[in-house]
Amino acid sequence: MELYWLALLASCIALALAAGTAALVLARPKGSERMVEVYEAIKEGAKAYLSRQYKTLMIFIILLAVIFAIAVDYGYFASGRFGPSYFPYTGLSFLVGALFSALAGYMGMRVAVECNVRTANAANGGLREALSTSFKGGLVMGLCMVGLALLGVTLFYTFWRDPLLFAGFGFGGSLVALFARIGGGIYTKSADVGADLVGKVEAGIPEDDPRNPAVIADAVGDNVGDVAGMAADVFETYAVTLIGAMLLGWPLYMKLNNAAFLEYPLVLGAIAIFSTIVGALTVRAKEGGDPTPAILMGIVVTAVLAIIGFFLATWWLFRSLELFYSALIGVVIVVLLAVLTDYYTSYRHSPTRSIAEAAQAGPAINIIRGLANGLESAFLPALVIALGVVGAYLLAGGYAGHVYMGMYGVAIAVMAMLSIAGIIVSVDAYGPIVDNAGGIAEMAGLDPKVKDVTDILDAVGNTTKALTKTFAIGSAGLAALSLLLAYMNEIASYKGISFGELTSKLSLARPDVILGLLLGGGIVFLFASFCMKAVAKGAFGMVNEVRRQFKEIAGIMEGKAKPDYAKCVDIATRTALKGMALPGALVILSPIIVGFVFGPYALAGLLIGCIVAGLALALMMAKGGAAWDNAKKYIETGAFGGKRSPAHAAAVVGDTVGDPCKDTAGPAINPMIKAINMISIIFAGLIVSLVLVPLP
Amino acid sequence: MELYWLALLASCIALALAAGTAALVLARPKGSERMVEVYEAIKEGAKAYLSRQYKTLMIFIILLAVIFAIAVDYGYFASGRFGPSYFPYTGLSFLVGALFSALAGYMGMRVAVECNVRTANAANGGLREALSTSFKGGLVMGLCMVGLALLGVTLFYTFWRDPLLFAGFGFGGSLVALFARIGGGIYTKSADVGADLVGKVEAGIPEDDPRNPAVIADAVGDNVGDVAGMAADVFETYAVTLIGAMLLGWPLYMKLNNAAFLEYPLVLGAIAIFSTIVGALTVRAKEGGDPTPAILMGIVVTAVLAIIGFFLATWWLFRSLELFYSALIGVVIVVLLAVLTDYYTSYRHSPTRSIAEAAQAGPAINIIRGLANGLESAFLPALVIALGVVGAYLLAGGYAGHVYMGMYGVAIAVMAMLSIAGIIVSVDAYGPIVDNAGGIAEMAGLDPKVKDVTDILDAVGNTTKALTKTFAIGSAGLAALSLLLAYMNEIASYKGISFGELTSKLSLARPDVILGLLLGGGIVFLFASFCMKAVAKGAFGMVNEVRRQFKEIAGIMEGKAKPDYAKCVDIATRTALKGMALPGALVILSPIIVGFVFGPYALAGLLIGCIVAGLALALMMAKGGAAWDNAKKYIETGAFGGKRSPAHAAAVVGDTVGDPCKDTAGPAINPMIKAINMISIIFAGLIVSLVLVPLP
Repeated sequence: MELYWLALLASCIALALAAGTAALVLARPKGSERMVEVYEAIKEGAKAYLSRQYKTLMIFIILLAVIFAIAVDYGYFASGRFGPSYFPYTGLSFLVGALFSALAGYMGMRVAVECNVRTANAANGGLREALSTSFKGGLVMGLCMVGLALLGVTLFYTFWRDPLLFAGFGFGGSLVALFARIGGGIYTKSADVGADLVGKVEAGIPEDDPRNPAVIADAVGDNVGDVAGMAADVFETYAVTLIGAMLLGWPLYMKLNNAAFLEYPLVLGAIAIFSTIVGALTVRAKEGGDPTPAILMGIVVTAVLAIIGFFLATWWLFRSLELFYSALIGVVIVVLLAVLTDYYTSYRHSPTRSIAEAAQAGPAINIIRGLANGLESAFLPALVIALGVVGAYLLAGGYAGHVYMGMYGVAIAVMAMLSIAGIIVSVDAYGPIVDNAGGIAEMAGLDPKVKDVTDILDAVGNTTKALTKTFAIGSAGLAALSLLLAYMNEIASYKGISFGELTSKLSLARPDVILGLLLGGGIVFLFASFCMKAVAKGAFGMVNEVRRQFKEIAGIMEGKAKPDYAKCVDIATRTALKGMALPGALVILSPIIVGFVFGPYALAGLLIGCIVAGLALALMMAKGGAAWDNAKKYIETGAFGGKRSPAHAAAVVGDTVGDPCKDTAGPAINPMIKAINMISIIFAGLIVSLVLVPLP
Repeated sequence: MELYWLALLASCIALALAAGTAALVLARPKGSERMVEVYEAIKEGAKAYLSRQYKTLMIFIILLAVIFAIAVDYGYFASGRFGPSYFPYTGLSFLVGALFSALAGYMGMRVAVECNVRTANAANGGLREALSTSFKGGLVMGLCMVGLALLGVTLFYTFWRDPLLFAGFGFGGSLVALFARIGGGIYTKSADVGADLVGKVEAGIPEDDPRNPAVIADAVGDNVGDVAGMAADVFETYAVTLIGAMLLGWPLYMKLNNAAFLEYPLVLGAIAIFSTIVGALTVRAKEGGDPTPAILMGIVVTAVLAIIGFFLATWWLFRSLELFYSALIGVVIVVLLAVLTDYYTSYRHSPTRSIAEAAQAGPAINIIRGLANGLESAFLPALVIALGVVGAYLLAGGYAGHVYMGMYGVAIAVMAMLSIAGIIVSVDAYGPIVDNAGGIAEMAGLDPKVKDVTDILDAVGNTTKALTKTFAIGSAGLAALSLLLAYMNEIASYKGISFGELTSKLSLARPDVILGLLLGGGIVFLFASFCMKAVAKGAFGMVNEVRRQFKEIAGIMEGKAKPDYAKCVDIATRTALKGMALPGALVILSPIIVGFVFGPYALAGLLIGCIVAGLALALMMAKGGAAWDNAKKYIETGAFGGKRSPAHAAAVVGDTVGDPCKDTAGPAINPMIKAINMISIIFAGLIVSLVLVPLP
């Protein structure tokens, strides 16, 4: 009953369709000479940044691959469950994972850059054309990410079978995504905050005005941060979720001799790809209307088709429906998180309006209120996820004491959630594309009606962006939980004891577990701190540079002299590359140090401490940031004095504070909590045998 | 070898000395007529607020006592380890605990109010007189808190022996402290932020200027928030730590038939009281010099004497020194936390200077940088506490597999830390007293040289305040951990299984434990959100009221018309009383709901999730807030443009954002994580027998 060929087929179709759609988009015209000029500047900046980022990472990645090949593959596989083996499974799959992840990020960035200018040009022809171009760009990305991840894992499975052998693939993806998120996030927000604070606030010129020296850096940042970072992030979440589910399927496969437990996650992925393709075809805007329903309809169609497919596949493979219920829970979680995000971040609802109202009493009260709302918005999603875990566990059979089934059920819920990432990414990537199209229209001095079209599309993009951000955080938290279970399972297997025996030792009352938990919380805060600090430094440098250019370059304000864009691009690039080092080192070293010094139980505590604190902090930062942003937008609609009122000035401060929260530190926590789990899984074998301070 | 009479003796001496010192202070003159007038206004406001707060709480406390008497005492003690019993142990001890805690808060407030005006008057006579008066006031409080807590617990122990019977005493204390912290924190920061934003920032009049309508509310807030809240908080931390240590001593007492395990924590408390008295006697400032060394010397002398005493008592009681090492770790943690706090919050060091530097680029970058530093400052204290837990556990004998000894060692480390709370409170309370003395000097129009004297003392107060805040958070985190262990121990005892068996079930891999952990993190964030939101609302109302008075009351700015102080006092009072309800309900209901719906394991997860997230968040808020405050002060010394520069204006925004973090939400998390643990301990028996969704 081998069904994994379905996954191979689906991933190849996804990639082929992505290529075809890309060709269609590329065939469209780029527009006027000035537009091509702006496009070239952005393309150069983005390519230059990504290639420097990847070059910096390359040496490091190769070094890690060698370490894995020697320490992990040779060192413990030789004495572990695989019998003597000198083949560098982990090292090799790690390299491939890193490569795929980098490729995903690079392609995402290229597609976005090409689509930005073409969407701006298409907006000349009206809403429908512009939506079609931008959504196609998003779709290329969505299909690429999902196709690459599913293809990679399925190929490894075809040749190597045991998912532990290619866990390196997931970690390679995580690591590149981690750096892409951190670096891209620092880049985009250093540029954005710097550009806004001097341009909009001090000099009073509009956003994306070509007189602002930081405007090209800002546009580059949108592509390398919001798009390339997000693409690499979704790729890795999908990949580690698949591998996590297979790792937890492994003991069931061994016990029940049923390969369906290994292939089921792959099949879910394949079904969701087919559903995504049909769903994407339904996205078509009518001229003049609100495009939101069309876009949401694409997601709904995909989800419904996927659920039907999951139902059939589950029955076909297992002749029982327990695991289908777990999968269903995954889809329900997506819907609930979307509703909660909308409530906490849209200015149609009271929380965001209250932030706008508070702005009347100045920036401080605006920020206090935004912090309060951000803190609050962490609770209900955490509740949904917590109940989801228990539900998926119990429905899959965990209630009857089948611990392995319960854990596998949790992993399946996450996989079901992630399986529809293709359509979600399409919708998410569409946002920055239209945003940038608007920027290009402004910079190239196009007819204002073009900006009107992109503004309508952009407003929709803001809603969908908040939705997908919660999706990313929620799925990251759940994926990390299933990785944590996989880690425990590996520890049990290396110790040669049953999972039940292991869990009986992994008690909350152990001092080493408590140590790990406390450190886990502290590490997440430290990681977020590094990200925020890098943005503060970069933005500080950017502010000074833009102030300097405004002062020293004569005629810049009258549009007679050209600002020195390259200098600002350089500041953002250097800040981002320097800023990646500390948080990256923290993520890689902390599990290794804690694991080898205090042992596998302390490390388990650290992992869950990271998940608990990371989930809450990431939710708070993402939602708080989006709410500040939308509170400002609400005031711009005319509330509380409208634009140029003191309330608006106060709201701009809140928006700026929220920027690095929602676009740098918050999203970087997602790959962080998964990377820290993946590295623990890979080192599990070594950690079990070499501990400095082993507690009984 | 019964030594607990030592504790009775020490606590009575402490209370007698407090009474004597209070009489000395009260005998001093209050000063000019105008000073008495201001003093009367503050006293009225503070008394009115506290009596309304206590009245609001009273019905609720009595209701809870009845519930405890019926549900806990009659319900499960009847079938539990105590044999049939209809005596309302929990209900009664709960009432007494609540009463003592309220008394501690009330006395703290009264002493502070009386000392403020007398310190202002004494400052006429120079630094030495002023320090003597203010420090005596602090000492009265410190001795009262510690004396009351030790006396209460020792008396209960004398008559009832089993600490579980008087766990209610700790919870009563926690509950009142919780509300005192929340209510007081909301009150003080609504008034402070409101007064500053309109008075200092908009109208440009100095702090504590009598023309500001919110100035009396602000002074009242300092007394009911910083002093009464802190007093109730320290009282309850001390009490629950004692009870927690005795609860963990109980199984050792039963196993080894050695009552020393029950009395040892009481003896440590007694020794530390004697050390505190000697230490306090050494605090004497020389005229004209910096009073910091004199104050720090008092702490050092106390700590050294206490350590010597602990050494002798440990040897005397156990003829071995294992537990002494654990106690020593407790004292070392205090020192390390103090050093870290100084590094992260004093403007002598780079973190706070970097916040001041960032202010040059405007309020947004100032706030981003402060958030980043706050997040960072959570890490090292968490590391210190985590290592302390492992160290105390291992040194007490946990390494050799004596789980009970290990847990008891952790509790002893916390008790050692808390035992010197008397001198710490003296130093802490001295801060608000001189701060308010300065305010009274300003309001009563005293000679500027008086303000100079109080300013010197106040600067020292800022250092010691940051120190004691970290002490409070660190000890709260550790105390909560020892309560968590006590909770687990109770669950084991009600299930009739050994602690080892229980811990083997309390695994990180259980879905209900994961649920609890995730919810625990979310609940802390929600709790902090409620506190911040109340301040945002209160300050918003205050800003509008002060703006209104400035506009509508003619001659207010020229000092010809008197502002309507009472209106502002009323706004702060109403905001505080209303703001207490939600966070209070959250703390009481969440463990009960999670416990009864998902069982004792989920509740254990919730408790530790609260501790992990609560510790990190409280540290971040306390340190971040203090750093923003001191960054502003650093600019006021002339850095980056000095007072009235744009950097200063930006730093004022940061300082205001930090205010509710460091004085409302941050400190309220301390009693919150202990109260949530105490209520779980009290309901442990019922939760074990009545669970809706029990997992195997």
